[in-house]
Amino acid sequence: MIQKLIARIEKTGAPIVAGLDPMLSYIPEHIKKRAYEAYGETLKGAGEAVWQYNKGIIDAIYDLIPAVKPQIAMYEQFGVEGLTAFARTVQYCKEKGLVVIGDIKRGDIGSTSEAYAAGHLGKVQVGSKEYSGFDEDFATVNPYLGSDGVAPFIKVCKKEKKGLFILVKTSNPSSGEFQDRITEGRPLYEIVGEQVAKWGEEHMGETYSYIGAVVGATYPQVGKTLRQIMPRAYILVPGYGAQGGRGTDLVHFFNRDGLGAVVNSSRGIIAAYQQDKYASFGSENYADASRAAVLDMKEDIACALAGCR
Amino acid sequence: MIQKLIARIEKTGAPIVAGLDPMLSYIPEHIKKRAYEAYGETLKGAGEAVWQYNKGIIDAIYDLIPAVKPQIAMYEQFGVEGLTAFARTVQYCKEKGLVVIGDIKRGDIGSTSEAYAAGHLGKVQVGSKEYSGFDEDFATVNPYLGSDGVAPFIKVCKKEKKGLFILVKTSNPSSGEFQDRITEGRPLYEIVGEQVAKWGEEHMGETYSYIGAVVGATYPQVGKTLRQIMPRAYILVPGYGAQGGRGTDLVHFFNRDGLGAVVNSSRGIIAAYQQDKYASFGSENYADASRAAVLDMKEDIACALAGCR
Repeated sequence: MIQKLIARIEKTGAPIVAGLDPMLSYIPEHIKKRAYEAYGETLKGAGEAVWQYNKGIIDAIYDLIPAVKPQIAMYEQFGVEGLTAFARTVQYCKEKGLVVIGDIKRGDIGSTSEAYAAGHLGKVQVGSKEYSGFDEDFATVNPYLGSDGVAPFIKVCKKEKKGLFILVKTSNPSSGEFQDRITEGRPLYEIVGEQVAKWGEEHMGETYSYIGAVVGATYPQVGKTLRQIMPRAYILVPGYGAQGGRGTDLVHFFNRDGLGAVVNSSRGIIAAYQQDKYASFGSENYADASRAAVLDMKEDIACALAGCR
Repeated sequence: MIQKLIARIEKTGAPIVAGLDPMLSYIPEHIKKRAYEAYGETLKGAGEAVWQYNKGIIDAIYDLIPAVKPQIAMYEQFGVEGLTAFARTVQYCKEKGLVVIGDIKRGDIGSTSEAYAAGHLGKVQVGSKEYSGFDEDFATVNPYLGSDGVAPFIKVCKKEKKGLFILVKTSNPSSGEFQDRITEGRPLYEIVGEQVAKWGEEHMGETYSYIGAVVGATYPQVGKTLRQIMPRAYILVPGYGAQGGRGTDLVHFFNRDGLGAVVNSSRGIIAAYQQDKYASFGSENYADASRAAVLDMKEDIACALAGCR
């Protein structure tokens, strides 16, 4: 799957992930109105609105980008009906040829991580049959529980040819509270990064590993250090756009081959029509605004990688 | 909710949580057969089997214990149908008067943690209406992302009178890989524990805080240290039974008031009938075996707290 991701990045020329993190406040009124007319102001109505909103965006941008990253929390907040919309979104993106990174940040003790890995990346056995629960291509994983919490995910990835992005340094303001603690002379995120590099070396695609890392765009100097510690790990970079990361911050996350990083933008793409810059599209044409935002982001990153300021 | 938990612990005399972590291999054949006859060997069939199995156990033990802890991964592995069984289980346990601890180990950046908190402990707004997605009483939270990943959970708990158990030292063999790293002269789990104590002091019930901690029974000496660092935090103690923790290991997790800790057992209770000790019940009477296992666990803990060896 890491090969598919890289091939699509090279084909589109866009190391970009669209974060499909829908909030009801992002969804245009006409979509909500239609969904509530069909199912009422219910969790099912909310799930339907989320799904229709996503579908419009996916149809408008799927040819421009290699991958999407639905944040499962935004679906889980609507309970089972929200998760139904998550499952439909994953399935539809895959039909469109997109690589799907499930932003699930799961992580638990061994047998429990096994269940998460089966549900999101692998298969479960029911009697004589096998099924995939959610079936993403990649998943994000929280490493706080250590190797035996991560190993079951790696095992499933090996079998199913899928991949992981392991949280190393997150994009949020308080990420340093534990992740930056100096331990044995260096910050904890470096130690986690070394472990990711080690797991990664044992699980290589052709040039990159299918065990990648999450490092926030909001910490570019940390990105530079971690790029060196994990040379063959693909880095998933959240925090671009709405959280403050800019194109020029991204340069050090990439390797000299122009690969090695893929940058996520969520609100900046999916709710572009709510920004002044794209307001002229209007809410009816929200998906076209998303397309314009992707093209601008592509240019911003290409420009930064080419050395312009 | 911490008051309700304490009141139920005092009433039952059992500081015990039953971990409702169903695996298909635990479920007696007669239950699976009936579920597959109704829905086929499908994810829906698996969800039905899980739900019927849980219901049998809950009916057999609800009067003996204060709380249950369904591990959401065991449901999530069956996709949406599994999560439907999770939601039914949570609802049914609450109807039976049990406190429900959602073992979800979620944790993300601020706005995303908000969505998880709303979905599991709070409410979401859909148009003019409000709904609860899963509606547990407590949730477990992963602190790796720091304060701004935890704060949204605390905010919802304050509003809804619910509670948290924050991962401090987990029960698995490799938990030390990151959690035990020496940072500023002491292990990371102590620093996380201090932070939990600080959050907890600001969010007190009557005698205990509604911000608790997870500390594994498999590390009794760590439990002793953390008990002192977090004197007013309730400690949820996994790892008893199948993972190797024994009654005598638990003593230091409790305060002198006999409170302050609640011990989880999953497989040891729900799959008791598969152990030699309870095999005579037979799989048809699996729930009676669970009841016997709860009574034995209650005695083991009471004995340990009374000082017998």
